Amino acid sequence: MHEFGAILIVSGPSGAGKSSLIKAAKEQIGDFYFSISTTTREPREGEREGVDYFFTDQESFEADIKAGEFLEYAQVHGNYYGTSLKPVRKALEEGKLVIFDIDVQGHAIARERMGDLITSVFVTTPTLAELEHRLRSRGTDGDDIIKKRIQNALVEIEYISAYDFLIVNDDFERALDSFIAVAKAARLKKGRKQALAFINHWRGA
Amino acid sequence: MHEFGAILIVSGPSGAGKSSLIKAAKEQIGDFYFSISTTTREPREGEREGVDYFFTDQESFEADIKAGEFLEYAQVHGNYYGTSLKPVRKALEEGKLVIFDIDVQGHAIARERMGDLITSVFVTTPTLAELEHRLRSRGTDGDDIIKKRIQNALVEIEYISAYDFLIVNDDFERALDSFIAVAKAARLKKGRKQALAFINHWRGA
Repeated sequence: MHEFGAILIVSGPSGAGKSSLIKAAKEQIGDFYFSISTTTREPREGEREGVDYFFTDQESFEADIKAGEFLEYAQVHGNYYGTSLKPVRKALEEGKLVIFDIDVQGHAIARERMGDLITSVFVTTPTLAELEHRLRSRGTDGDDIIKKRIQNALVEIEYISAYDFLIVNDDFERALDSFIAVAKAARLKKGRKQALAFINHWRGA
Repeated sequence: MHEFGAILIVSGPSGAGKSSLIKAAKEQIGDFYFSISTTTREPREGEREGVDYFFTDQESFEADIKAGEFLEYAQVHGNYYGTSLKPVRKALEEGKLVIFDIDVQGHAIARERMGDLITSVFVTTPTLAELEHRLRSRGTDGDDIIKKRIQNALVEIEYISAYDFLIVNDDFERALDSFIAVAKAARLKKGRKQALAFINHWRGA
């Protein structure tokens, strides 16, 4: 029986530790495809094309939107961010777990389009005060950006009910154990087509 | 902040290995309450009241149904099986994971009543032929019961799309690893009330 992949969506405020969890979990959750976003924002120091993001301009991005090439896209802090469908389809066909790091808008759209393949988890700091503390101490963003991130976080946190699972990242090792469990569980998600195929296989038909 | 529990529902044909998985996972998934069913069927050899089941008669069972004391109940093979709500509420209040081993009907009803607390997993053999083989080789059931179990399994397998996750129990160690992941993930489920409480706490309100 052909194994089809599944999708894990990870959302949560910048500074909550999503990227660190995904990086630290890598060795323990088996083969997966980490979806790389396409964006119109400027690369930050050290960011590489095709590794951190696919960087593009507004015109090309909008053309691809019209062509239906994006699973989801959103405007955040005045820039476009989006997820091209092609590499996602390929990874699913190969039976991989596809991991998305997207925001609450992206999650809502993806649920509508591929909901039966999706497991979702929201990662957050234990409190807003702790989020602000982490954003300030990592020292990568200016005051204005931090203010925007906090404003965003205040909106995003309202959506946690829309997620399957919530990870409160107060202790990194505990959060990592939880994240690995969610990622392993996400592989066990069966879409409608896969479920039908499995039932036929199971019956011996 | 008060921690409220969550629910894991485990379904699947008799003989697929649900009980063995739950038993083997016990040490690794932390404190949980395993919901014990109430039934009107006769105890089998070795079964103990309050451990395997609460055994009762049809009259009492039907009185409790009218009193709304059951989360769910169903008639299977001519006997009542049901889940009393009281110990479930208590365990949730204590912040425990409540594990239910119930059938597809029970799962559907529980989803309607407490859906926002539920993570569900369907456990099955890789094929129908393998299920029949396992039922025959465990030697606890007569031919008629095995036939009924197979008929039930043919109905139940149609419902796997209604479950969050599917575990195909072909290799026990692999199935166990999957089951532990699902149980750990299930603890991260937040109901609507809990999500609201968390958001208020997070904001520092």
